[in-house]
Amino acid sequence: MSDEQELGITESKQYNTGEWYAEVVQKAGLANYGPEGMSGFIVTRPRGYALWESIQNYLDGEFKKTGVQNAYFPLFIPESYLEREKDIVEGFDPEVAWVTHGGHEELEERLAVRPTSESIIAPYMAQWVRSHRDLPLRVNQWASVVRWEATETKPFFRTKEFLWQEGHTAHETRDGAWDETMTRLSQYQSLYEDVLAIPVLRGAKPEHDKFPGADTTTAVEALMPDGKSVQAGTSHYLGTSFAEAFDLTYTTEGEDEEPAHTTSWGLSWRSLGALIMTHSDDQGLVLPPTIAPEQVVIVPIWQADTQEKVLDYAEDIAEDLEAAGVRVELDARDERNPGFKFNEWELKGVPVRFEIGPNEVDDGVVTAVHRPDGESVELDRENIAEAVEEQFDEVYAKLYAAAEENLEANVREASARNEILGTIGQHGGYVKAPWCGDEDCEDEIKDQIAAEIVMVPLNDEDAEIHDGEDCAVCGDDAEETAYFAKSY
Amino acid sequence: MSDEQELGITESKQYNTGEWYAEVVQKAGLANYGPEGMSGFIVTRPRGYALWESIQNYLDGEFKKTGVQNAYFPLFIPESYLEREKDIVEGFDPEVAWVTHGGHEELEERLAVRPTSESIIAPYMAQWVRSHRDLPLRVNQWASVVRWEATETKPFFRTKEFLWQEGHTAHETRDGAWDETMTRLSQYQSLYEDVLAIPVLRGAKPEHDKFPGADTTTAVEALMPDGKSVQAGTSHYLGTSFAEAFDLTYTTEGEDEEPAHTTSWGLSWRSLGALIMTHSDDQGLVLPPTIAPEQVVIVPIWQADTQEKVLDYAEDIAEDLEAAGVRVELDARDERNPGFKFNEWELKGVPVRFEIGPNEVDDGVVTAVHRPDGESVELDRENIAEAVEEQFDEVYAKLYAAAEENLEANVREASARNEILGTIGQHGGYVKAPWCGDEDCEDEIKDQIAAEIVMVPLNDEDAEIHDGEDCAVCGDDAEETAYFAKSY
Repeated sequence: MSDEQELGITESKQYNTGEWYAEVVQKAGLANYGPEGMSGFIVTRPRGYALWESIQNYLDGEFKKTGVQNAYFPLFIPESYLEREKDIVEGFDPEVAWVTHGGHEELEERLAVRPTSESIIAPYMAQWVRSHRDLPLRVNQWASVVRWEATETKPFFRTKEFLWQEGHTAHETRDGAWDETMTRLSQYQSLYEDVLAIPVLRGAKPEHDKFPGADTTTAVEALMPDGKSVQAGTSHYLGTSFAEAFDLTYTTEGEDEEPAHTTSWGLSWRSLGALIMTHSDDQGLVLPPTIAPEQVVIVPIWQADTQEKVLDYAEDIAEDLEAAGVRVELDARDERNPGFKFNEWELKGVPVRFEIGPNEVDDGVVTAVHRPDGESVELDRENIAEAVEEQFDEVYAKLYAAAEENLEANVREASARNEILGTIGQHGGYVKAPWCGDEDCEDEIKDQIAAEIVMVPLNDEDAEIHDGEDCAVCGDDAEETAYFAKSY
Repeated sequence: MSDEQELGITESKQYNTGEWYAEVVQKAGLANYGPEGMSGFIVTRPRGYALWESIQNYLDGEFKKTGVQNAYFPLFIPESYLEREKDIVEGFDPEVAWVTHGGHEELEERLAVRPTSESIIAPYMAQWVRSHRDLPLRVNQWASVVRWEATETKPFFRTKEFLWQEGHTAHETRDGAWDETMTRLSQYQSLYEDVLAIPVLRGAKPEHDKFPGADTTTAVEALMPDGKSVQAGTSHYLGTSFAEAFDLTYTTEGEDEEPAHTTSWGLSWRSLGALIMTHSDDQGLVLPPTIAPEQVVIVPIWQADTQEKVLDYAEDIAEDLEAAGVRVELDARDERNPGFKFNEWELKGVPVRFEIGPNEVDDGVVTAVHRPDGESVELDRENIAEAVEEQFDEVYAKLYAAAEENLEANVREASARNEILGTIGQHGGYVKAPWCGDEDCEDEIKDQIAAEIVMVPLNDEDAEIHDGEDCAVCGDDAEETAYFAKSY
């Protein structure tokens, strides 16, 4: 297989989204599949991990600005701890990887590889909290978790082990905990909208689809180009159920003993999957400049007699950009022609390409080309660092606008069962419909087209849709507006 | 138990080092022990984790400046992979935690929770490397690993799960790989000497104590105040054994197929243990300003009639320091008196305390007190940010000097078996002695006083000690200079 063939994406995003996605992930050097016998695991390569580091840096900064401290809890959870909160054990039981032996000895009690850490964090928070003065308490950990789901591997979207952060907080009151839940949901929204160029919807999960043991599960949902929704980050108000199960209580000012109100919230490398899926195309990866490891690649174009002047000029520009904090790569490889380089850096998702030949040198300009639409603009050599920041803003705005257009065009309404089925079947996307709140009505849709209720809006935002209406499925009185969609 | 009693350290560093260490770790809020049934595991609390983050930030920066990229490999390793490098399987077999079940199903092949990742990283590097143009290849991961050792838990020093980084590289030549091995060893040395205020020795492990499968294991060793040595970071030249076991080969310029030369190198949160153990005292934690989460604590001292002017002055100073990038905490709590605050912040290891009363306000000064020696200096209010940086340098220099003095006073020489035993028995520390290279001679010492050969100097630095001499234990010709010591 020649290098050229290896470089190209052969699948079509539009017609074979799944295969295309897998190809982009591998050919752009983001991840490989795990070893034989370990389906569901992936190896995150440096170019993929660098994207995750950018997401970490952004969120970690936001968390720390808002009172969160990082900590680290054990990888394993004793089975008896998992069992203390009955919803947790029921919710995760079928998905747990179990450690049964340490060295040559069988363990007395088997240990769960953490599927999430509420049941080991809550008992420690219980030790740390005595009085109302110790609240709010906010800890977060960046960690890997394991959920033994037997589905097809989809790198970053669906893997048995995944990287995430999980935040856990305790508060005096329901209001304090609810504010926390919303603060974290907003930070997730901001990651998507301000860093990843992906507009999201916010909502709550239906009762039967909440995090096990939670009072309320809220989520941001992102619509992928294939019409499926991704649960892109979740923030749970846990009520007092975990506090009661793990004796997380505090003494009030009046010396009463009260259970704390707790929250947990998590965002995983699924965000990376959404990023790749949303913007990339049949040429490969597309990244917004906010997160691209290289924001600009400079491709010099020379003949033997112009090589020196072109290279000197290109090096100068690279230095200027670097000094201004721009992440720039000068591709001065002699053994590759410009066309090859264009393809390679397009595949890798560099948002802005500078083409510099002898004409550019003579005119004191550079030709800047946007990824993905190929728009080309001439920039003055002077103030190049400022000019390129404007190009970044433009590229970002284009990516965001395209994703927003897709989202806005794909939220539809329906008032009857067949309308829900037909609309999702034909267009994908979200269908808003009045709903009685009964899981059976969701099941009827799920059984037919594998679409489910991915959220109901918070704060009754879509009240006009269900007020005085009948459930689109069963015809009973509607209580909520349900967003039906197929989902990842 | 009153707050005052809880705050104080009750054990003596000099007489009960182990108990004192455990008390400092817990009372300074660095870590708790794991849950029942999980001896060997700890919970790293925010104040402890912040120190680990500082170590990460420093090393990660150094790595990235020298060509290393981060990646992430699966938490689990199939048993058959571990078995491919026979030394690895023999070396780690008794220490592996095994996952045998996923959900309700027994796995076909059991999976090791990684004790170290050579056996899963090497086969992927083998896929990524084809020609000499792909080399050197350098990846690092920050991860947790598990080694099921049945010894007493000592937070950060000895835990079944620990956090570390593991770097893995591949090179064309032995020289390239050896340079890499030394580069990483130097970066570890620099972490200890320039950030943690701990001088270290560099050396190689004896043949029988190498990393399983390695050609050469090098390490930095730090001497603790109780006379025991800590293996504080290791850097392995692996030769071509891993490359051969995992088909990590490359095509040379002459189109030959050659196995790569590989290295691996790791530093764990044991560095945190060494930091706590080296500098802390009977008042609690002591931290160098380089790494302290709070570098300065301001304790205002007021009466009712001076409260406002003292607080205003203190707040102004806190703002100035913050603006200059100093990590400062103003402890303006009304319900605690200054003496209580002094004790609390000493326990927590803040390197510089500012005491500000009405006199300081009137004179336009602050009183700065160093931790740990209590030296007090008056600083001008003007240029306070510059002045405090000088204080940081002084505190750092004092901590380093004390550690260096301890090290220099505790490297002794011996030329006979009983001299080795007597010297270590009486003083602890290192004893340099000529050695034939035979493990049996080390065993004789080990059996008597549990001291071992922690290193032999690199580059034959101590050649004068063994040249023409006899092994201090058996009397045969000496080949090397061995450093005997008790170790953590």
